[in-house]
Amino acid sequence: MLIPAVVDLAARNADWQAFVFSSLITGLLGLLLSVALGGALSEGLNTRQTFVLTTLAWITLPAFGALPFLWLGVGYADAVFEAVSGFTTTGSTVLSGLDSLPPGLLVWRSLMQWMGGVGIVVMAIVLLPFLRIGGMQLFQTESSDRSEKIVSRSVELIRLIGLSYLFLTTCCMFAYWATGMSPFDAINHAFTTIATGGYSTHDVSFSYFKNPATAWFAVLFMIVGALPFVLLIQALRGQPFMLWRDPQVRAFLGFVIIVSLSVTIYLGIKHRVPFDDALLMSTFNMISVVTGTGYAYGDYTTWGAPIVVLALLLKFVGGCTGSTTGGIKVFRFLVFFGTVRAHLRRMVRPNRVISEEYGASRLTSELSFSVLAFLVVYMGAVGVFTLILSAFDLDLITALSAAATAVGNVGPGLGPVIGPTGNFAPLPDGAKWILSFAMLIGRLELFTVIILLDPDFWSR
Amino acid sequence: MLIPAVVDLAARNADWQAFVFSSLITGLLGLLLSVALGGALSEGLNTRQTFVLTTLAWITLPAFGALPFLWLGVGYADAVFEAVSGFTTTGSTVLSGLDSLPPGLLVWRSLMQWMGGVGIVVMAIVLLPFLRIGGMQLFQTESSDRSEKIVSRSVELIRLIGLSYLFLTTCCMFAYWATGMSPFDAINHAFTTIATGGYSTHDVSFSYFKNPATAWFAVLFMIVGALPFVLLIQALRGQPFMLWRDPQVRAFLGFVIIVSLSVTIYLGIKHRVPFDDALLMSTFNMISVVTGTGYAYGDYTTWGAPIVVLALLLKFVGGCTGSTTGGIKVFRFLVFFGTVRAHLRRMVRPNRVISEEYGASRLTSELSFSVLAFLVVYMGAVGVFTLILSAFDLDLITALSAAATAVGNVGPGLGPVIGPTGNFAPLPDGAKWILSFAMLIGRLELFTVIILLDPDFWSR
Repeated sequence: MLIPAVVDLAARNADWQAFVFSSLITGLLGLLLSVALGGALSEGLNTRQTFVLTTLAWITLPAFGALPFLWLGVGYADAVFEAVSGFTTTGSTVLSGLDSLPPGLLVWRSLMQWMGGVGIVVMAIVLLPFLRIGGMQLFQTESSDRSEKIVSRSVELIRLIGLSYLFLTTCCMFAYWATGMSPFDAINHAFTTIATGGYSTHDVSFSYFKNPATAWFAVLFMIVGALPFVLLIQALRGQPFMLWRDPQVRAFLGFVIIVSLSVTIYLGIKHRVPFDDALLMSTFNMISVVTGTGYAYGDYTTWGAPIVVLALLLKFVGGCTGSTTGGIKVFRFLVFFGTVRAHLRRMVRPNRVISEEYGASRLTSELSFSVLAFLVVYMGAVGVFTLILSAFDLDLITALSAAATAVGNVGPGLGPVIGPTGNFAPLPDGAKWILSFAMLIGRLELFTVIILLDPDFWSR
Repeated sequence: MLIPAVVDLAARNADWQAFVFSSLITGLLGLLLSVALGGALSEGLNTRQTFVLTTLAWITLPAFGALPFLWLGVGYADAVFEAVSGFTTTGSTVLSGLDSLPPGLLVWRSLMQWMGGVGIVVMAIVLLPFLRIGGMQLFQTESSDRSEKIVSRSVELIRLIGLSYLFLTTCCMFAYWATGMSPFDAINHAFTTIATGGYSTHDVSFSYFKNPATAWFAVLFMIVGALPFVLLIQALRGQPFMLWRDPQVRAFLGFVIIVSLSVTIYLGIKHRVPFDDALLMSTFNMISVVTGTGYAYGDYTTWGAPIVVLALLLKFVGGCTGSTTGGIKVFRFLVFFGTVRAHLRRMVRPNRVISEEYGASRLTSELSFSVLAFLVVYMGAVGVFTLILSAFDLDLITALSAAATAVGNVGPGLGPVIGPTGNFAPLPDGAKWILSFAMLIGRLELFTVIILLDPDFWSR
């Protein structure tokens, strides 16, 4: 919060006070909590405590992140929505007139996404495999059942993640700057690209930058943000081929290439868009939706019914696990397809042993089950949130796309209100609270939160 | 087909020829097939042959059922759509001006649904448990792995199903007649109520009948059509308490009561509808959607956003297994909730043994897995069909509701074109073929057809 304070001071904008006071409140409370609970935490955490603390951390971050907005007169629901959307790297926004907002506020939005992005990566690599969320046990490094070991090994891993994250952000920033962005825009957009967050400093998002090279760099770094960070670290250390060997990286890249090319051909045939324009607009927007970034480059919702439906379905996909993206994520689709194929074969030949595989590792039935349960709960959650949102008189398209975009941490929805050219400000406050909860529960991969709702969890 | 021929002859309508010629073609080809293949079938069927024959049977029925429509000048896509919608008891229609159509055609539509309805019950009780489709192995009566035994025991069961079906249809017919329907309407609507089919003899469906008692009887018999036939048979033989003991019957009745009462309260508060009107309109339409019947009584899509979204979600639910309804069906939700709860508890306490139960029986992990896989594939199928339909430039609401209504065998969709007051005629032919396929695959509980698409199925 001191960074936006300095930015606003340099720009001689009175908003610096909001950030200084917010940082004082946050710092004081943080200090108090750390003194009060520091001893307890050093004893290590059991599984149940890890579930509770993970959820609490993701509630605490946006709660304090919302302080500067509150200070500046933004309403409670809006301030919390904007902060949750920031830290979860969703990128849905209730603010408009971004181009004329004070720079401190813009930097704060970008910083929330940047910090949220690295937080997600750390959580996905260090915590979720240990908690065995939705098949994440597939990515347990070794016998991760001893919390003490985790902590010691995790410190080194977290350091490496942080360094790579910083390095990639810097690369992205220079790429943007070199292709014509102002330094301010380059920093902000680098923060929100690597985090696949999607907050922009302009209402029209990437349509503001006329240079195709800028947009192509955004495509590149959105893809980077969607790759598994563990493999990105290995790539930066000189082993790039590890990336290509990973089943989910191959599937993810193959998928986005097929989707982008299909939409390119559609744009060429249906709207007679020249090939290079079509390729850029298609690739940019489809990758923005799949990775859950949420930048807009033109308005794809005007391209016709098939693209609207495709965009809605793509909101469910997400990138690779251990990346900054949200959504279901590619490895779960791979496990699902492998599992269902084996299931069908067992139905025909009940007595034959048919093994299910993911890459080189054989899948246990418990893991396949986790993934299937995750998929059902994910789609069920979108259905339930759609119904709750419709109770605020949101029409079907707005409610459904808002639910899908929030749970998947994508950003814009569909329809005239919350589509890529609109924003979430006109929604009733109740809907904003519901969506804030949906973004959090989506970010925490559903089960981390749902498990807390079972009375059995709290019994001894 | 000879029944509508007689009806048209009695009404002195020239259409009788269409039915006589269609019945001749059907009879001749049937005779040929029976002579050619009768010997092969008497040897009994293995699992793979059962999969193929089940699917073939449900393709053959509507293929011949479409003949009278073709003879009368209806286009190929429309004729097949209407026949598939009939035999699968979906109830989506491409015909309008029903009130002035010749009686033979109306009877033929009702008869297709009536025959389809009993076919579904037989398939769900006799075949699907044996094929272990989506957790249906839960309803295997005994060691159902010997096809010979099945056949001998099935004959008696099928006879009982047929008799109960006929008896319930007769009850429904008299109830309709006693409350003011013409005998012709009473017969037709009795056929399509017990089958939870939804074809009507009037464009405005049940709104045509002004008597609330008629509508309440429709509610009663739609519920009857959604109950497990095995338990209905036991109830008719003097053991009605078996119905109430069944977990899915209790869950189904509890669910529809809660939904109907909620919508009643909503109608009272939001639209100030008097309680008795609100109760009838709400109960009729919600049960029509949940059971996949598809009758309309007023236009619930004008009641507001929450009801539209609710109706879309209810299209997924369905009734009990072994009934004439489509959709996911209640027992799968029960297995899903039990399974996920046990899964969550195992995540917190990995070393504790936690059993999953359905009623009195413990669930095997294979069964839970079948059910979860079914749920994912079901929702995935709706997503894929939505995308394909959007390629015919159907808007999101039309495409999504058409896909959900077809896979769930419900009937009307949402939106101005295919909503409860519209019909499917304006859709392009391609969309009608896709929807015909979606209705069939939904009726065959997805896996019966999907399994045929795996090349491995066809290898020795």
